[in-house]
Parts: sequence; structure tokens; C-alpha cells
Amino acid sequence: MKFELTLLGTGAAMPMPGRFTSAQVLNVNDSLCLIDCGEGTQMRLTEYQVRRSRIGQIFISHLHGDHFYGLMGLLTSFALNDRQQPLDVFSPPGLQEIINVMLHYQGSGAISYPITFHQVDTTKHQLLFENQHIEVFSIPLQHRIPTTGYLIREKQRPSNILPEKITAYNIPVSSIKDIKNGADFQLSDGTIISNSELTTAPPPPRAYAYCSDTMYKPDIVPIIKGVDILYHEATYLHSDEAIAIQNGHATALQAAMIAKAANVEKLVIGHFSARYKEAQLFEQEARTIFPSTIGGADGMVIDVPFKKDNRQ
Amino acid sequence: MKFELTLLGTGAAMPMPGRFTSAQVLNVNDSLCLIDCGEGTQMRLTEYQVRRSRIGQIFISHLHGDHFYGLMGLLTSFALNDRQQPLDVFSPPGLQEIINVMLHYQGSGAISYPITFHQVDTTKHQLLFENQHIEVFSIPLQHRIPTTGYLIREKQRPSNILPEKITAYNIPVSSIKDIKNGADFQLSDGTIISNSELTTAPPPPRAYAYCSDTMYKPDIVPIIKGVDILYHEATYLHSDEAIAIQNGHATALQAAMIAKAANVEKLVIGHFSARYKEAQLFEQEARTIFPSTIGGADGMVIDVPFKKDNRQ
Repeated sequence: MKFELTLLGTGAAMPMPGRFTSAQVLNVNDSLCLIDCGEGTQMRLTEYQVRRSRIGQIFISHLHGDHFYGLMGLLTSFALNDRQQPLDVFSPPGLQEIINVMLHYQGSGAISYPITFHQVDTTKHQLLFENQHIEVFSIPLQHRIPTTGYLIREKQRPSNILPEKITAYNIPVSSIKDIKNGADFQLSDGTIISNSELTTAPPPPRAYAYCSDTMYKPDIVPIIKGVDILYHEATYLHSDEAIAIQNGHATALQAAMIAKAANVEKLVIGHFSARYKEAQLFEQEARTIFPSTIGGADGMVIDVPFKKDNRQ
Repeated sequence: MKFELTLLGTGAAMPMPGRFTSAQVLNVNDSLCLIDCGEGTQMRLTEYQVRRSRIGQIFISHLHGDHFYGLMGLLTSFALNDRQQPLDVFSPPGLQEIINVMLHYQGSGAISYPITFHQVDTTKHQLLFENQHIEVFSIPLQHRIPTTGYLIREKQRPSNILPEKITAYNIPVSSIKDIKNGADFQLSDGTIISNSELTTAPPPPRAYAYCSDTMYKPDIVPIIKGVDILYHEATYLHSDEAIAIQNGHATALQAAMIAKAANVEKLVIGHFSARYKEAQLFEQEARTIFPSTIGGADGMVIDVPFKKDNRQ
């Protein structure tokens, strides 16, 4: 089962050659969540061959343009592609009003499929969405305007039943679901076979945390503890910390401090200010504190494979 | 003096690889008018090395997204680039409301320079704007929502005074402006030297007409008569005329019929529907009626040189 992040745009406020504004896609088992949607996101989806029809939810962090100016174009293109399936859009308050004003002037029928807008309370960490495979939580961030991060976590999968035990104990199909969910099995002579003999534990659920845009905010650490990938903005180098603070942003070093404190597997940084000519400086700086840092680039794909059975 | 059109986006409703949605720049003497501003226009300006600081006016034809979804990003980037000079934005009613709603949620200070929004009455052909060099007029078009075309016309330049006559008649600097504007010159002995002996006529003013989106609308012909370049949308091939009518669009053949009736110098077509795989079919079709047709492509630059003295 896939758990794969594709970076569509890793630049900051202004699109630059090769670096679009913020947008990402998380693919969980071929269901896609789009996270932020800067201008040109729909072109990037085409360029990187992302199947846009599989996008079921869109999560917008905040209403600065570099995080949502590509949304209206994408929503319109969905309609032109005859999308029928519903779409859920999450964002801090205001997005629905913005979209509705634009739709008002476009004439009727611009959007043919149902969209549900969900307002995110940017002051709270809470469950926003769940389906069969994932749960999505808000992460309160601190920026110039109300901003939320998103934590996307796989649900715990049922245990794996061992095929050789099914044969050995002649386990009927009707019992398999219960055993996967933790039940023991009783033989016809009354003997109880314990669940732990019949199953292996499922791989631990994978998790992704998206934190952009935000100042250095250590109180998010407990929320994102141990995630497989943390994306944290790193708009500035630490030598420009004063400007970062002034603009409500973080430095590469600060992103690494958060990653280290939260003991995440991998840190991906992005939202690099165009003032710096060499993007690898961000990666270098972060790695001084957190070596498993990846300097994000448009088109980069980061896969999180299942870990081994966690009962070993 | 330059009169040069750069096509930034020649696709229809959805951006496609190599063909962005509608946007163009007209360069008149290094002052730039941006005409329509589809998603990604600011990336195209960078790609084609257009000096965005020289854009003084933006003309939006209508409020379908493929003609203005790049505007907010561009306005924001102007501010990030420390733009100070005023900007005039023309469009059918509604654009200012849309922009203001977005600005409301962006926090203060997103736009630092003065923008004046001008509402265009899409039912009238009238003067919208003029400066030292150009006049811009509306062209009433017929589409699914209120839509205007734009006619950009150079002002008549003063006559050119012949250098050898200045010497021969010892003409003082103080008289030159009057002579350029048509005055005769009186020698000290009272002899009148007629203006026609002292000057050559200026080159005729050049003109560009932008007509997109629109159905076939022959009553625009008198307005665009004889322009140097007519850009006319050609969303469909004529075999799909019924669909064109239904969607408020024109065919390549119809664009050519308008060009021929208006006796324009050159026809440029664009806004090609993505349903056709071969864009050259549009050009071929239009050329059966109007041979001086150019099939538009992103990045194409079309220069209109001065014509020779029109008194010859």
C-alpha cells in the first residue's frame, strides 16, 4: 500500500523558474490528498503525471496567494474533465466566500460536482477528516494570518493472519475477520489457539505532517512526534532569523530543531525564499542539526515503505 | 518605435503542456499593456523575459477563469517586487469585488501601489484609456457572460521635419514644433514656405485588435477595420460550428471571415480547444479564406514595423 509524497511546488511567495509556489500531493493507496495549491498546480499535476481524478480532499494551509491561487483553476478544470465525484476542501475561514464570488461572475454551471468546504479552526489540534485508510488532523501554526498545518495518519491496519495456520487449524473463512481484529480461535475440541500464534502484527501506521507557513513553534512537537515525514517550511537561512521572525517564517535551522525534538524519520524542507541563489544551503544548514533532511525540489517523490512487523 | 505583440498563452479553457490559457503583452514604445491574464501568466512573463515593471495597464476581456486567474498572483508579485507606480486594470464589472475579497483575507499591506479598477461597459464601443502614445477602445463581443475586446491604436504622430530644410531656411528651434504640427514657415522677407515642402508625413498609426472570447459577430468589423493585427479567437474548427455556437465561441473559418471583411493586415488566431491534437489545422482552415493568418503559439512575438510615408 502506497504512502508517497510528491512535491509540486517548493518556492516561497513568488514562483521562480523551476520552483513553483506551494503544493504537494500525498498518495495513500492511490487515494490522493492535495495539500496547498499555489498558482500553476494544475500544470504541475499534468507535468508529473499525477492522476487528478483521484484527488478526493484538498487541504489549504492559509489564504496567502502562494498557497491557493491555483485552486480556482483546478476546480474549474475538474469540471471541464467531467468530474462527478464529491470533493472536500479544508481551509481556514474565507475560502468559500472567495470561491463563491468568482463563481458568481462565471455564470451558471462552472462547477458540476459537489464541493464541501470545511472551515478549520487554526487554534486547535483536532480531527478534521477520516475515511477507511486515513485520519487528518489540524496542527495550529503561527504565521501572519490564521494558518493550519495538517497531520495525515494511516489508520491501524488489522493483523495479518498466517496462511499456514489457516490450513493447520482448518480455520473457516467466517472466522478470519475476527482473528485479524484480535480474536483467538477455538478448535472443535475446545482448545483455544491464541491470536498471537495465528497472526503477525500489521506494519505500524505511517504519518505525514505538513507545517507551512509558520514561525518556529516548538509546541507543535508533541503533535508531530515520530512521523515518517515532516515537511517544515524553511523560508530563510538562520543568518536572517530576524527577517524570518518579522515575516512569520522559520529558518532551515529551526525546521531541523523541530524535526529533532519530534524525533521524526525524515525532514523535508521547502518554501525557500527567492533571495537565496543556492537552495542547497538550506539543506546543509538543517543537516548540521538533523542529518536526515531533504532539501525539497519540485517534482521530488518521497516514498514511505511499510516498516517491518513491529512485534519483532 | 516598437509595436510588438507577445503571445503568452494561446490555449482555451484548460492549460495544456506548451499552451497556457489566455494572456498577451502589447509593447508600444516600451510601455506594456497586458491583455488577459490566465493562470501562470507571471511565469510566462519571466520565461519570455518581459519586463513586468513596464506594464502600466491590464485589460481583462471577461471573468472566465482562463482569462484572469493569473491576475492575483501577478498583482501580489508586483508588490513583492516593490512596485510603486500606479496600475490601471480594465474589465467587465466584478473584478474589483473578487480582488477585494481575496485581499481582505490576506492581511494588510499585500498590495503597496495604487490600483485603479475601471469597469468596462461590454455593450459599447468607446474610448477607455489614452496616454501620450495610445488610445484604447472597447469592442463589444458576444460570449456566455459579459465580454469586451480591446482596440489599441497609436495616436497620430507629428510630421517629420526634413533636416536639410532646417539648414536651407535657417529655421529656429522655436518654430520646429509648430511646423511638425502642420504650420507653414515665414522667411524674414515675408515668403511663405508651405508645410508640405518642409515635412514628410508621419508613418500611419498602428493598431491592434483583441477579440476573445466571442461568437462570430460581424458587427465588430467597422470597429476593427484595417488594423495591423487582429487577434481573434478560434476555439473550434468549422466542422464543430454547432458546438462553437452552443459555447459562445467562434471557428477558425469565422475568424478568417471577420479578418477578411475588416481588411486587416494580419490575423492571429488562438484559444484553441484542447480537443484537437493538431493546432496547425486551425491555421490551415483560416488560410483558405484569409491567407495572412498566423496560428498563435505561446512565446510567439509579432512585430508591426512602421509603414512607409503614406503620402508617397
